[in-house]
Amino acid sequence: MTYTAQMLETYPADVHLDHQQLASVIDCLTTCAQACSACADACLSEPAEELPRLARCIRDNMDCADICHTTAAVLSRHTGYDASLTHAQVQAAIQATRTCGDSCAEHADAHEHCRICMQACREAEEAMRGLLPKLQPSGRAPGKPSRTAPQQQG
Amino acid sequence: MTYTAQMLETYPADVHLDHQQLASVIDCLTTCAQACSACADACLSEPAEELPRLARCIRDNMDCADICHTTAAVLSRHTGYDASLTHAQVQAAIQATRTCGDSCAEHADAHEHCRICMQACREAEEAMRGLLPKLQPSGRAPGKPSRTAPQQQG
Amino acid sequence: MTYTAQMLETYPADVHLDHQQLASVIDCLTTCAQACSACADACLSEPAEELPRLARCIRDNMDCADICHTTAAVLSRHTGYDASLTHAQVQAAIQATRTCGDSCAEHADAHEHCRICMQACREAEEAMRGLLPKLQPSGRAPGKPSRTAPQQQG
Amino acid sequence: MTYTAQMLETYPADVHLDHQQLASVIDCLTTCAQACSACADACLSEPAEELPRLARCIRDNMDCADICHTTAAVLSRHTGYDASLTHAQVQAAIQATRTCGDSCAEHADAHEHCRICMQACREAEEAMRGLLPKLQPSGRAPGKPSRTAPQQQG
Repeated sequence: MTYTAQMLETYPADVHLDHQQLASVIDCLTTCAQACSACADACLSEPAEELPRLARCIRDNMDCADICHTTAAVLSRHTGYDASLTHAQVQAAIQATRTCGDSCAEHADAHEHCRICMQACREAEEAMRGLLPKLQPSGRAPGKPSRTAPQQQG
Repeated sequence: MTYTAQMLETYPADVHLDHQQLASVIDCLTTCAQACSACADACLSEPAEELPRLARCIRDNMDCADICHTTAAVLSRHTGYDASLTHAQVQAAIQATRTCGDSCAEHADAHEHCRICMQACREAEEAMRGLLPKLQPSGRAPGKPSRTAPQQQG
Repeated sequence: MTYTAQMLETYPADVHLDHQQLASVIDCLTTCAQACSACADACLSEPAEELPRLARCIRDNMDCADICHTTAAVLSRHTGYDASLTHAQVQAAIQATRTCGDSCAEHADAHEHCRICMQACREAEEAMRGLLPKLQPSGRAPGKPSRTAPQQQG
Repeated sequence: MTYTAQMLETYPADVHLDHQQLASVIDCLTTCAQACSACADACLSEPAEELPRLARCIRDNMDCADICHTTAAVLSRHTGYDASLTHAQVQAAIQATRTCGDSCAEHADAHEHCRICMQACREAEEAMRGLLPKLQPSGRAPGKPSRTAPQQQG
């Protein structure tokens, strides 16, 4: 069991998502953030003639690293859980892994690090697409705030 | 002129957004991220009897700090500009500043740091709401990727 | 092989550190950063009477999460490698994992999440203590810059 | 008065550093982090023939952005203040702004964004060098932990 899963198992309040699925998404996100940081720098160390065509990939790597890291942090917090915020941030991360995975795919044949980073992006994207429907804010009465804070009810 | 504005003025390619408005949004986001980090810690140093009711505010502060910081970084990158990604991340940040601003507002009368942090959240939210319509992906042919990369055309 | 190790194996230039050891340190740091984010929030969801004594632990969690994440990113970059900078940042991270591990240790009997987070901190600290001697800047002539950029020589 | 200064003025416990100096350091760090993120991307949008010589500058920008952001967050937290940790992180940030400022200086004549980013790095470095002596852990009895937690004494 990863540390992420252990932390969920020992959480002192209810976590209103499937623990195993959530741990898997968080681990995919931290792995992807790390791969994207490494891929940005690997691109920078490619030979001079390769650099211009890698500029957009480096940029996408940096966005994806930042966004996946932040999304993992948001998904690791359950105090005062806010479905709308979580949903919006996961949607942005799905877009980031899609964009970065596509950029890396363009260079996957030429650069092994891009092929590996593409895999990490695809896995994170797929994991999040499986989680997204369960994050949908629902049952909100009109005019009510989106915040549901399930574990602090009562 | 802030450093953010100076960096935009000297950008070596086209930036397809109004420089002054973009610089203002980025500066609001970095200011808000900093205020939220400080507010989370200020809440932690409140007297023991105050802490339980501040738990959700601290959580919202941490989300908002992470998301605003990441959003400022995304908005500071123009190489291979991707309107869909930028739009999705700004939407998440609007939600984060709304959620955190509301949390701080609940404690604004009792805690000055919450009142100040609420202001920083509201300013960032308002600045982003003004920018959002200009980030809308548009004119995409069906099946075309969302990426527009305007400054690398030609 | 983790993605971190795969990225190192496919790096397009020399990495002047043992790949296996470096991958292990980076993975410990990302794991620790994630555990600390989760522990901060788990502490916030503890019952009201527990919160005051956990305030310092939450703060240490937040520092340790930020510092470990940044240190993993620095260690993932090899372009223009700067031994002095890497050494200084790893020293700060050793201090952060020591401080946070000690804080969590104080609550390890009462809170399982603190016990698990303490383990993650101890593992990251031990891994970094093993790496630190190999990061020592050396052989610098007086007055020469600390930058060594080994992989770009020649 | 910046939001950073206002947050310090309304902090609910003692802050054992000069408020004005501390606010100035934090603001320099967030400004520098933002400038470095922008400079990394501006370098990526330079013409193809410029990119190879900018690779190291981009890497240094990324390190400096991450480290300055984390250091600003650490300096914004005063609950359970730990002088050793703060001192070590500020030392790493001084090294990062020195390294990145030097990298940008090499390109300051050719690229305005590097000249501006160099200024932001120099200002942050100078501000931190003024603060560092006041962070020195002191008066610790042998064998005592480094933690001083001044605002929780009593």
